[in-house]
Amino acid sequence: MLKLYEVRGEDVEFRPSPYCWRIRMALAHKALAFEPIPWCAVEKERIARSGGGTVPVLVDGDKWIRESWDIALYLETAYPELPALFEGDGDRTKSVFIDAWTTNVVHPVMAQAVLLDQFPLLAAKDQSYYQERTKRKFGTTLEDMCRDPDGAVDRLRNLLAPLQLALDRSDFLGGDRPGYGDYIVFGAFQWARVVSTRRLVDDDSPLGRWFARLLNAFDGFAASQPDRSHWT
Amino acid sequence: MLKLYEVRGEDVEFRPSPYCWRIRMALAHKALAFEPIPWCAVEKERIARSGGGTVPVLVDGDKWIRESWDIALYLETAYPELPALFEGDGDRTKSVFIDAWTTNVVHPVMAQAVLLDQFPLLAAKDQSYYQERTKRKFGTTLEDMCRDPDGAVDRLRNLLAPLQLALDRSDFLGGDRPGYGDYIVFGAFQWARVVSTRRLVDDDSPLGRWFARLLNAFDGFAASQPDRSHWT
Repeated sequence: MLKLYEVRGEDVEFRPSPYCWRIRMALAHKALAFEPIPWCAVEKERIARSGGGTVPVLVDGDKWIRESWDIALYLETAYPELPALFEGDGDRTKSVFIDAWTTNVVHPVMAQAVLLDQFPLLAAKDQSYYQERTKRKFGTTLEDMCRDPDGAVDRLRNLLAPLQLALDRSDFLGGDRPGYGDYIVFGAFQWARVVSTRRLVDDDSPLGRWFARLLNAFDGFAASQPDRSHWT
Repeated sequence: MLKLYEVRGEDVEFRPSPYCWRIRMALAHKALAFEPIPWCAVEKERIARSGGGTVPVLVDGDKWIRESWDIALYLETAYPELPALFEGDGDRTKSVFIDAWTTNVVHPVMAQAVLLDQFPLLAAKDQSYYQERTKRKFGTTLEDMCRDPDGAVDRLRNLLAPLQLALDRSDFLGGDRPGYGDYIVFGAFQWARVVSTRRLVDDDSPLGRWFARLLNAFDGFAASQPDRSHWT
């Protein structure tokens, strides 16, 4: 069976990583069963065979594949008979754009809104690792980065306007069914949902309704990960 | 023959509007001949039958269609036997996202870099109209809006990073051939090219090479509109 190395929290069932959620949803989309392997960020040696130090890492037989985008492409190529993650070349190229926009524009602002809520949920042995990574990547402390979460939510809502418009026209970024482009964006909101009680979008908006549809997709696969209000 | 109402400048052949370029390229994509009808922004009565006061407006027999997005959808529906502008539902929905992102995120920053250069090229009878529109839309003067064009170019280059990444993977946002998503973004850069000598992207970058490919597409249709250095 496929194996998926994923970031865990102090609770071994807790799954905060937006990148891992992209792949969890892609696997559900293709109805591929997988064995989840909970992993802590400091356990680099456990995924050394992937050639990197971050997850998701997918293991398929003797193949180790890392980086969410490359895993998605791998799944599409290795399992072409299963439901497609992309409609074609144009859809795939636009999904690269959505991937880069979500990762580089949406995640950093979302982080300012939810990272402080996430911190106590991380595996105890990962906490100083994440604190140091924040200092290295952003040149600041977690506390300083998250000093204005309400302002971050306002900025986020502005950033998301193009998504609201697109999802006002179609049920999914994939059209009338979800595709990998949806799972990229979903990963970000699922991350926020499971680590923070802060509401980032109105339930009664195109984006809010789209999120609910994806939470309920695949027999409620993503909804089964408890939201923050259940963790506290 | 199809007619296309388009913004002109003081030079009747000058075509600055990014929205009109989206449709010019869509018509070229479908190899649909059209009669260009140069139009000044104050000539509202000439396009009253469209139901609005802005161009592009496409006239097909007795049908008047306005708004670039609706015109693109019209062309796709009315001429399904001609080359498709969209790959399918997913590509079309992602193109809505790209439309909103280009219009609401890219255009305003690009405007701060090039609007002052554009002003003297506008039709003389449109100049006070555009000045008043700037005051109404942005609560500021054109001069004040454009007081830091170099800073705007820097911000623009940051904004465009996700596009650079996507176009590093494929020749076009449409994959190995251009589609309407490409023409949306192309309109912005063609606007900047014809109104300003300011360089917004490096020729030797994925975005620069993509722009050159589209300038040269359809027998150099877009390249035939002189760039700013020829106008001065």
